[in-house]
Amino acid sequence: MTSIESISLQDARRVIDAGEKRAQELGQPSNIAVVDAGGNLVAHARMDDAWLGSVDISINKAFTARAFDISTADLAANAAPGQQFYGISGSNQGRVMIFAGGLPLHRNGQVVGAVGVSGGSGDQDQSVAQAAAAGL
Amino acid sequence: MTSIESISLQDARRVIDAGEKRAQELGQPSNIAVVDAGGNLVAHARMDDAWLGSVDISINKAFTARAFDISTADLAANAAPGQQFYGISGSNQGRVMIFAGGLPLHRNGQVVGAVGVSGGSGDQDQSVAQAAAAGL
Amino acid sequence: MTSIESISLQDARRVIDAGEKRAQELGQPSNIAVVDAGGNLVAHARMDDAWLGSVDISINKAFTARAFDISTADLAANAAPGQQFYGISGSNQGRVMIFAGGLPLHRNGQVVGAVGVSGGSGDQDQSVAQAAAAGL
Amino acid sequence: MTSIESISLQDARRVIDAGEKRAQELGQPSNIAVVDAGGNLVAHARMDDAWLGSVDISINKAFTARAFDISTADLAANAAPGQQFYGISGSNQGRVMIFAGGLPLHRNGQVVGAVGVSGGSGDQDQSVAQAAAAGL
Repeated sequence: MTSIESISLQDARRVIDAGEKRAQELGQPSNIAVVDAGGNLVAHARMDDAWLGSVDISINKAFTARAFDISTADLAANAAPGQQFYGISGSNQGRVMIFAGGLPLHRNGQVVGAVGVSGGSGDQDQSVAQAAAAGL
Repeated sequence: MTSIESISLQDARRVIDAGEKRAQELGQPSNIAVVDAGGNLVAHARMDDAWLGSVDISINKAFTARAFDISTADLAANAAPGQQFYGISGSNQGRVMIFAGGLPLHRNGQVVGAVGVSGGSGDQDQSVAQAAAAGL
Repeated sequence: MTSIESISLQDARRVIDAGEKRAQELGQPSNIAVVDAGGNLVAHARMDDAWLGSVDISINKAFTARAFDISTADLAANAAPGQQFYGISGSNQGRVMIFAGGLPLHRNGQVVGAVGVSGGSGDQDQSVAQAAAAGL
Repeated sequence: MTSIESISLQDARRVIDAGEKRAQELGQPSNIAVVDAGGNLVAHARMDDAWLGSVDISINKAFTARAFDISTADLAANAAPGQQFYGISGSNQGRVMIFAGGLPLHRNGQVVGAVGVSGGSGDQDQSVAQAAAAGL
């Protein structure tokens, strides 16, 4: 038997709120999604005027970050042509996103979930995701 | 050109909060999702201990209720074997849900979005969805 | 070698116009789609305020009517539980629609394409489709 | 609540007509599709002799241009290997098209829909899309 630490809806909302605050500072409406330790969606929010196509991307960045316990920016480096995980984006029925904006959420050295942000440039998404993760 | 009334993230959160309160009264953890007038997800919340498989169902009940401007319970009656819309659940790449829990959201006689609830019995989902819609 | 009679874009537009006129008479905004002899989309129109979920359905009713050279209403009778084609709606990657509103388009006894209508009750869709087909 | 400007069927037809005229000048039969502010198809036309495989591409270029409020040519530059959105084409269930021919439609500084063109070279598709958008 094993015990899994995971996030609650309350935790997920705190994460989203922190990300939203950062997105507002950047003036960049964003989609923010949080998954639990099982990789399953806990909460999602699309800020007003954020891209429609980013709903799917935010959820799947969060999934990806938990699926491989890695930031999607780091995974991207490994998934570039010629690198060790090139082609990984074709796995998991198209759910693997290999660009910045997804981060695992840690508690006591364990991954307890992940956050995915989509709505701006790669740098903006990463910045919002970092603020969101810090909100945990 | 045409002007469409749609819901904001703030509206969606009010809808989810109202649904969540009703779900707590029923003691039935639920997934609650809200889409805008274009059928695109605005916000989603999975209450602690709610079914994992209901993430997708709640989002797609909301989509369905907006896609056909009808409650999914009413659509279900028309989609039964021998009825006029039997087979509709095979359309829209599996996104059409034909059981209770999805309701259009109205404002001034217009459909401005929809809410989808999944997590309990059909009656419970319907009750949570009604409370959620009333929260708009 | 074989020669296939098929419809042009001009034909398809005449079909859609005729359907649209009937839909206006019925006061039922509809999606109307026309496919050619190869089952491929030639033209589609969503009338203002027609259901979003009917985009996919209108296109696939047209596909279905040409795919089996039969009206989707007649196919429905054969696809009911216990009938000879029960389960056919699971074929062709979910593109087979088994409710009224799709009709083959004939010219000189040959099927040259098909029209699909979605937006109202089964009777309304059928009526619009018949008017559309007569417009060829 | 929020109010969204979107295009009507009449607007979409004007856009398609303008694109068609340009495609004829170029001697390049094209598929032309228009989506509304919600990313949902309003109208589509396949000119005689245009590629069958471009039906899907034209519709999804229009979707993409609205999903990210960007021309698909500009998105393409950002989706190249090593760029910030490399991998985005794997999102949204294969609906994201990252080559020229999709343009957002603007009115009073707002994106009110999008047009997608497919049928010729990238330069031709882009030229037809620009003419189409100007027809709004």
